[in-house]
Amino acid sequence: MSLFFVIDILGTIAFSISGVLTAFNKKMDPFGIFIIAFVTAVGGGTLRDVLIDAPISWMRDLTFIYVIVIAAIFAIVFRKRLKHLRKSLFLFDTVGIALYTVVGVEKGIEAEFPVLICIALGTISACFGGVIRDILCNEIPVIFRKEIYATACIMGGVTYFILLKFNVPTDWIVILSGSVVISIRLLAVVFHLRLPSFYSSEELEN
Amino acid sequence: MSLFFVIDILGTIAFSISGVLTAFNKKMDPFGIFIIAFVTAVGGGTLRDVLIDAPISWMRDLTFIYVIVIAAIFAIVFRKRLKHLRKSLFLFDTVGIALYTVVGVEKGIEAEFPVLICIALGTISACFGGVIRDILCNEIPVIFRKEIYATACIMGGVTYFILLKFNVPTDWIVILSGSVVISIRLLAVVFHLRLPSFYSSEELEN
Amino acid sequence: MSLFFVIDILGTIAFSISGVLTAFNKKMDPFGIFIIAFVTAVGGGTLRDVLIDAPISWMRDLTFIYVIVIAAIFAIVFRKRLKHLRKSLFLFDTVGIALYTVVGVEKGIEAEFPVLICIALGTISACFGGVIRDILCNEIPVIFRKEIYATACIMGGVTYFILLKFNVPTDWIVILSGSVVISIRLLAVVFHLRLPSFYSSEELEN
Repeated sequence: MSLFFVIDILGTIAFSISGVLTAFNKKMDPFGIFIIAFVTAVGGGTLRDVLIDAPISWMRDLTFIYVIVIAAIFAIVFRKRLKHLRKSLFLFDTVGIALYTVVGVEKGIEAEFPVLICIALGTISACFGGVIRDILCNEIPVIFRKEIYATACIMGGVTYFILLKFNVPTDWIVILSGSVVISIRLLAVVFHLRLPSFYSSEELEN
Repeated sequence: MSLFFVIDILGTIAFSISGVLTAFNKKMDPFGIFIIAFVTAVGGGTLRDVLIDAPISWMRDLTFIYVIVIAAIFAIVFRKRLKHLRKSLFLFDTVGIALYTVVGVEKGIEAEFPVLICIALGTISACFGGVIRDILCNEIPVIFRKEIYATACIMGGVTYFILLKFNVPTDWIVILSGSVVISIRLLAVVFHLRLPSFYSSEELEN
Repeated sequence: MSLFFVIDILGTIAFSISGVLTAFNKKMDPFGIFIIAFVTAVGGGTLRDVLIDAPISWMRDLTFIYVIVIAAIFAIVFRKRLKHLRKSLFLFDTVGIALYTVVGVEKGIEAEFPVLICIALGTISACFGGVIRDILCNEIPVIFRKEIYATACIMGGVTYFILLKFNVPTDWIVILSGSVVISIRLLAVVFHLRLPSFYSSEELEN
């Protein structure tokens, strides 16, 4: 069992639980909750695969569906105690987006897309599960409004190509560009960083 | 003209009319109404075909577009009297989702997807037209919040594979698993069944 | 540099700026603003390419991404003065949808789809960027509620096939059917035309 695989499972768990919690806020029924958990976990990768016309991985390998179902049941049963897990979930989510970013970039390189598109594919893999979750829950996607989330993924993608340019071995590229995603995300949350806002405080009150 | 074809037309009519009624509630213009009728009727099958990378059927066979246009015009003209048709529409819709479920499952089997994915494809075919309709109308999808709707489709898909395991002839599998979808849906509506709720009555008041 | 290319760039600029303005109203952050500009500009063509299973053009040719980034930055910097550009933007947008309609129709013909589907593909190319923009911004798509917008595209598509029937040379077909889209859109705005409404004034007040 590779480290990659373990991280992927942890990321899937974190994404599923975040989906369950959002669905709970919208008073969804068990079917709705499961669907939201599912799209949060696999939506980004699915959109990426549709865009590059690749086979969609969860349709051939059921591991992730099982993980999502178990994580969703866990989140439903222990939902009142999940706040104690908030820090662990945040960490899982953060390593999850780091991994998804790297995987997305590599799928783009494999299919010989331009650098800019590969970085976009990494960001889509990591972020668009959450975007689809928010649309299905009738909310404006949270990553469009706050949090250094997508920015961390973009920086990770950029790092990937800089290191590639310098002929750094692939394993190191993966570890280093993943670490960039994780570091930016952690620093942003610890120091309450946001992207610069264009709105005067007056405008934000409306 | 096969029975399958007749059921498919009836299902398409019911889905289109449900789309028109939702679009009316949102005060859409004729173009909007038609688009909502259209996505309600073909959205589920389209999503299924994009996921399995199959050609999208309504793009090659225009029959369904004609049916949708006629159903939409009918619904617009007679919209004030449609409540008298409520029971017929409900029945059409119910046989429609039964058929779409079976067709979706069979498309999955044909493309050699795992059992679980085939059941998911059946459910997507039957239910996601309504999901896309609700998203375009800026509502949380109704099937995520109430009604034994998706559950009926899932049970129909499960039945399909149980019967397949026992070497029941295909015609019988289709009829029996379709009947399971129809029966569960009818029983659920007659007896006001819902999936068990996780919310205390207190929580639901908010 | 062909006329086609210039029009395409102008259309992309207009679409991006309309995306930026909508995102601004929703108080999005810079990442959200760029994503909305991007999907407004390329969303329609992307949906068309997914439906016909063609490669997605912006993933291989980066010109449009650069144009969108520059237009978005321009719109952000000069957002307070954009109202002075309203007329130019409206014109860019109008020639943009005319071009996108024609390109969509031609992609459909190339892939040998039926006439009705080709017209639908033209309309999707021109209109669904705006639909996806509105969904991501949690609004009911504006083209479903008012404005002769899609109707102009449909009429342009119909014109294309009428002229094709009469063996008009392709260049002329393109110019004439594009002009139909532009004329209908301009006339509709100048004379405040809308599609006939089905709602009594009473209903509209609710």
